[in-house]
Amino acid sequence: MQILKTTDQDFSTKFQAFVNERREATVDVSGTVRDIIADVRVRKDAAVKEYTSRFDNFNPQSFRLSETFIAEQAAQCPANVKSALEVAAERIATFHEKQLPQNIAYTDAVGVKLGLKWVALPTVGIYVPGGRASYPSSLLMNALPAKIAGVERIVMTVPMPRGEINPVVLAAAEVAGITEIYCIGGAQAVAALAYGTESIAPVDKIVGPGNAYVAEAKRQVFGRVGIDSIAGPSEILVVADSKNNPDWIAWDLLSQAEHDPSAQSILITDSESFAQKVIAAVGEVLTNLPTKEVASTSWEKHGAVIIVSNLEESIPLLNQLAPEHVELCVDAPQLLANQIKCAGSMFLGRHTPEAIGDYVGGPNHVLPTARSARFASGLSVYDFVKRITYLQCDEQALHSIGEAAITLAESEGLPAHAGSVAIRLKEN
Amino acid sequence: MQILKTTDQDFSTKFQAFVNERREATVDVSGTVRDIIADVRVRKDAAVKEYTSRFDNFNPQSFRLSETFIAEQAAQCPANVKSALEVAAERIATFHEKQLPQNIAYTDAVGVKLGLKWVALPTVGIYVPGGRASYPSSLLMNALPAKIAGVERIVMTVPMPRGEINPVVLAAAEVAGITEIYCIGGAQAVAALAYGTESIAPVDKIVGPGNAYVAEAKRQVFGRVGIDSIAGPSEILVVADSKNNPDWIAWDLLSQAEHDPSAQSILITDSESFAQKVIAAVGEVLTNLPTKEVASTSWEKHGAVIIVSNLEESIPLLNQLAPEHVELCVDAPQLLANQIKCAGSMFLGRHTPEAIGDYVGGPNHVLPTARSARFASGLSVYDFVKRITYLQCDEQALHSIGEAAITLAESEGLPAHAGSVAIRLKEN
Repeated sequence: MQILKTTDQDFSTKFQAFVNERREATVDVSGTVRDIIADVRVRKDAAVKEYTSRFDNFNPQSFRLSETFIAEQAAQCPANVKSALEVAAERIATFHEKQLPQNIAYTDAVGVKLGLKWVALPTVGIYVPGGRASYPSSLLMNALPAKIAGVERIVMTVPMPRGEINPVVLAAAEVAGITEIYCIGGAQAVAALAYGTESIAPVDKIVGPGNAYVAEAKRQVFGRVGIDSIAGPSEILVVADSKNNPDWIAWDLLSQAEHDPSAQSILITDSESFAQKVIAAVGEVLTNLPTKEVASTSWEKHGAVIIVSNLEESIPLLNQLAPEHVELCVDAPQLLANQIKCAGSMFLGRHTPEAIGDYVGGPNHVLPTARSARFASGLSVYDFVKRITYLQCDEQALHSIGEAAITLAESEGLPAHAGSVAIRLKEN
Repeated sequence: MQILKTTDQDFSTKFQAFVNERREATVDVSGTVRDIIADVRVRKDAAVKEYTSRFDNFNPQSFRLSETFIAEQAAQCPANVKSALEVAAERIATFHEKQLPQNIAYTDAVGVKLGLKWVALPTVGIYVPGGRASYPSSLLMNALPAKIAGVERIVMTVPMPRGEINPVVLAAAEVAGITEIYCIGGAQAVAALAYGTESIAPVDKIVGPGNAYVAEAKRQVFGRVGIDSIAGPSEILVVADSKNNPDWIAWDLLSQAEHDPSAQSILITDSESFAQKVIAAVGEVLTNLPTKEVASTSWEKHGAVIIVSNLEESIPLLNQLAPEHVELCVDAPQLLANQIKCAGSMFLGRHTPEAIGDYVGGPNHVLPTARSARFASGLSVYDFVKRITYLQCDEQALHSIGEAAITLAESEGLPAHAGSVAIRLKEN
């Protein structure tokens, strides 16, 4: 964990280095993934079967999970967890329903009819990581926006190493209304979704988190299908004044740190003594934290405390860091929030720990990482719809705007473009 | 050019092969591009200078074009072309202004404040291809949505082989209000925009068309910056009944074919005799077309005529082909248009040749190619804004939804997530 002060002489150099730091070592798995995809394209189900046996030590009769199996497993989800999933789903659905965009349609002064219609993607595949570490909350965050967008066919793949599955994942699928589920994972699942096999019809877009092989497979099939962004390790930036309870802030910092040794937790505060209290509290909480190993590695390697002269100073720093999550633990958070231009999602005030947003807040928890909030946004209904624009001229409207088109087409050396307009102006 | 009939026994096999046909040979330039990007990251301006000298045979004093130079060059644009650019810009701006999205903000029943705000990307770089073949209309289509989105800094790069530039490009930049222009191109321009050099500040997103090196460079810098989609060769699908003038339809087909030998023009009609008339007309128009060489290669290699029993039959075929451009040359185009789910942009009725949309229609002409209209959309204001979501709980609101979050966090094995909520519920 490093401490930076804006009053230090070399602050700006140190801060630049901190901004540019890459936290994730990228392993090159592109060759392996390329081979798997090529094989699945040719041998389809047979190839998927082979990789599933080899990598997951699992030999299912059929990739598709039966209704009975899904229901039996989902029934093993504890009742309080099922209820919590339902609370989460309802709140996520309500927030995302407000994102449904409006079509555009108008006739302009010269009689041209113009418009833009939003259409749901026909089919979407959701990748869900396997094993006990799978996150049912992510399934809801990926599936519900697609559902609300109106996607007709939503497919899910989830690997079942040694035939095991987390019942909570299937309970979450039930809550989200997903019934077409295949027990495959890795690059072979991504390839099957993109190109289709005898038993799995292809999809138009693939979303959802995965390991390095899944991420690389998504990169390689992009173009054939759409993909969501490739997520990096999680980040939180907490802006806090000295009136906060240092323990609360310590828990918030560790809630990111426990995700991954590459995760990053940053505190910006205007009080050095408060910072020291938080640092001490982090140490104390860590002592008994079951995820201590991961959390302390993340905090030691990537954690940072930035001391500013006043909290206004945090805004330009924050916009450069473009963090995935921002907590504004101050009395009037909206004043700072209004100035924030680069962040995934914001958590305002002293009673909004980021973890609320991970589960039951309503906004999506799939958010841009690795400074990509400069140009990217969290997952939303917009990721599952597309726009089709249109134009309609009648004879008179074409006469009004046709000459300008002809002039530009000729200037660009495209005579058939010009001709297709000119012939309609001439003969009528 | 091939002719397919839905009544043929092997139609569906042939049609599938046609859908899956890949029209573009991909040259692997990834190694060269990787070297150029790595070099520009280290040696910055010096590297860009060297590549510009080597590839463009041009040694400018400074990469940034002076106000005087831009004004002098732009003044050489013919007056009628300048006026046409202004007509185009005004119509494009009007259509794109209607895309400006609405923020979301509400307080729900348990007192949680939620919202989503749209924010313009801070800086955008537009790549404009060089030489005489550059398309000033594309500059407008890329720059105006960024401008309307509220992007504060819009930068443009355009290579100047042997010091030459198309005055119309600089006139278009003037119309679009772009003043920060650098005379560089290729992978070195993309690298400079993504990473910055001594004389060029980096941007957050890079858009605009380019050759194979530019496309590959955009792929490689993706993640560091945002990029638009990588465009493939252009496509048109014309649905036409026998009441059309075959000459008009022939011109429309050739207006795509003249773009590129890999471009594709498809006619779907319910009349075989009309199809034959169009095919004959294409041959006739080609005889005197200055772009004959390109257009006839495209038509012969990739052109297709599909004869359907009735025009309703064209809809599922069209949705599978997901063409960049669709013309519906029938009396009641809206009836067909309502059923279209996969297309970039639609041109309705007999008096709306696609070329109108290339220049002065209003909707964007940067559109999804290579069947990607299944999941992707044309360029728009949405490509230059991002969403930041937010959440605010007070004490009471946190008490309402906190337990569900704790339950899910514990079920996912994330105790610090649970703890960050629990400590706030406990102490208050």
